[in-house]
Amino acid sequence: MKKKITVIGGGTGTFVVLSGLKKLSSIDLGVVVAMTDSGGSTGKLRDQLGVLPPGDLRQCLVALSDAPILWRKLFLYRFENGDLKGHNFGNIFIAALEKICQSYDQVVETAAYVLQTEGEVIPVTLQRLHLVAEFESGKKITGEGLIDENVNETSRIKRVYLQPSGKANPKAIERIINSDFIIIGPGDLYTSIIPVLLVEGISQAILQTKAKIIYILNLMTKAGQTTEYTASDHLIDLEKYLKRKIDIILVNNGSISKKIIDTYRRHRETVVIDDLGEKDGYQIIREDLVDNREIEKNQVDIVYRSILRHDGGKLARVLEKIFYDQISQDLIQTRP
Amino acid sequence: MKKKITVIGGGTGTFVVLSGLKKLSSIDLGVVVAMTDSGGSTGKLRDQLGVLPPGDLRQCLVALSDAPILWRKLFLYRFENGDLKGHNFGNIFIAALEKICQSYDQVVETAAYVLQTEGEVIPVTLQRLHLVAEFESGKKITGEGLIDENVNETSRIKRVYLQPSGKANPKAIERIINSDFIIIGPGDLYTSIIPVLLVEGISQAILQTKAKIIYILNLMTKAGQTTEYTASDHLIDLEKYLKRKIDIILVNNGSISKKIIDTYRRHRETVVIDDLGEKDGYQIIREDLVDNREIEKNQVDIVYRSILRHDGGKLARVLEKIFYDQISQDLIQTRP
Repeated sequence: MKKKITVIGGGTGTFVVLSGLKKLSSIDLGVVVAMTDSGGSTGKLRDQLGVLPPGDLRQCLVALSDAPILWRKLFLYRFENGDLKGHNFGNIFIAALEKICQSYDQVVETAAYVLQTEGEVIPVTLQRLHLVAEFESGKKITGEGLIDENVNETSRIKRVYLQPSGKANPKAIERIINSDFIIIGPGDLYTSIIPVLLVEGISQAILQTKAKIIYILNLMTKAGQTTEYTASDHLIDLEKYLKRKIDIILVNNGSISKKIIDTYRRHRETVVIDDLGEKDGYQIIREDLVDNREIEKNQVDIVYRSILRHDGGKLARVLEKIFYDQISQDLIQTRP
Repeated sequence: MKKKITVIGGGTGTFVVLSGLKKLSSIDLGVVVAMTDSGGSTGKLRDQLGVLPPGDLRQCLVALSDAPILWRKLFLYRFENGDLKGHNFGNIFIAALEKICQSYDQVVETAAYVLQTEGEVIPVTLQRLHLVAEFESGKKITGEGLIDENVNETSRIKRVYLQPSGKANPKAIERIINSDFIIIGPGDLYTSIIPVLLVEGISQAILQTKAKIIYILNLMTKAGQTTEYTASDHLIDLEKYLKRKIDIILVNNGSISKKIIDTYRRHRETVVIDDLGEKDGYQIIREDLVDNREIEKNQVDIVYRSILRHDGGKLARVLEKIFYDQISQDLIQTRP
């Protein structure tokens, strides 16, 4: 029986994890996708056409695509001029499908068909909702896009919630409950990961599942959102919304070049300090998880923040070992 | 051996003919598509992105599509709001493909693959060019879109030409030379049909081919382009650019409702008068060819001019008989 692995998220980090895990043949891979993005092309399509946010969904569908490279390139293609300037073709494709399909399931199925996507891609909710962040200063920001752009914030986020509160897609609940492992991160804590956990029914499903929860810690802090956060800070905030304890934490111990660190520093972002030690009750795995290759253009949306990424292949190798160890343990336990 | 049938054109008329002929299983069907459109969504994409005009190509690919209705609907879907307002999804799809494909052949193949298009769809040229019309008044208009919109013109078109003069796609030449029948029309004489004939190499191929040429006469005149044209006027202008004689003319003799005639009259367009009699050297077939059904939304772009159309099924039945008669004649001739 294949282990059921469910990734939670939606941004570039999720793209990397999925791209890595896709190559493992012995797992049943799926992803529960955040549906609160409101920035860029996605935000415009939401506002102008009244569609659900297509961006994160598109990235996950492409990450798990087995189609020829042309199709993946097409779905990641961004127009550079005219009326379509800044819009991503994949987003337009999904938006047009939503306009003519009977259901959002049909939208996902149709996009998955043309991309030959292997694995289950599940929007966490099919309701139109926005993320709201309340800061300790009392400031309140509505919209994931605006929260993402609020990089000069000095106050910490006090809490985030959804407006209106959304009900989870039953498929997401079912998948989480029946998973063997749930993988959270890497990704922006407050705008890629917690928005999934906030959807009504998700944290209950996470409480209910027998799955082990693996958290892949971010490499860098995110200005205005996790400014100066250490590893422990990430963990505390995440578990607050997760409403249960994480089991396994993957921490990078590979070196990051000074040049990259300097680039991030100019944006007030720094390496996440590993202050976890040998924290009780957690399995902490420290490995070199950094991607040192040149970033291929068109493979993901390139912004400065993406110049440093986890290596999908390295992540997959570490994760595969975790899955394998579990299978061994299962075998020992079921031995008469 | 299947008869090789090649349709020439690109507008709604071509869509109807192709949709009808598609149902005949015993023919090898293809279309040579006009590449001079510069109006609407197509025109904007040309101007803003520097792509070849996708509109006529898209309509032909959809007409010959065997894909589930969803795909055909998707390719004909027109956005109604925001940045994408007025743009047709199929046009955006073809434009994005052109941006990432190695060749335009690959663009057509990829779109044909997803639409499961049966039959050869050939852009008449792969060069970027515009149609220019010179009127008897001395007025000159550049751009098919503008010529189309020039509905208040009282002067006749003196000549049309391409700027720059374009070379034909070798596939178009090959297909025309090897065809058994070439079907021209229905469609706007000066903005859908003659633009194909103007491309360098096409009229030479038509002179060279053994194919019989069938002309499907338009039902109505087109204001500013064929104002008050009779059937003979259409024939004279067409043969001038075709540089050879037409063999068979299909003329509608089915009745057109007064309500529809009145609608067209408000736009100074009238029923094309059949003044052909029993014209020497032509086989003239008069049949009821009018579509009396309700027009299904989304099936083609609906403008007032499309409320009256040829019936694809009726056309196909008449054409099938012509093809069959030819097969019988061939058999008689090859009998020892």
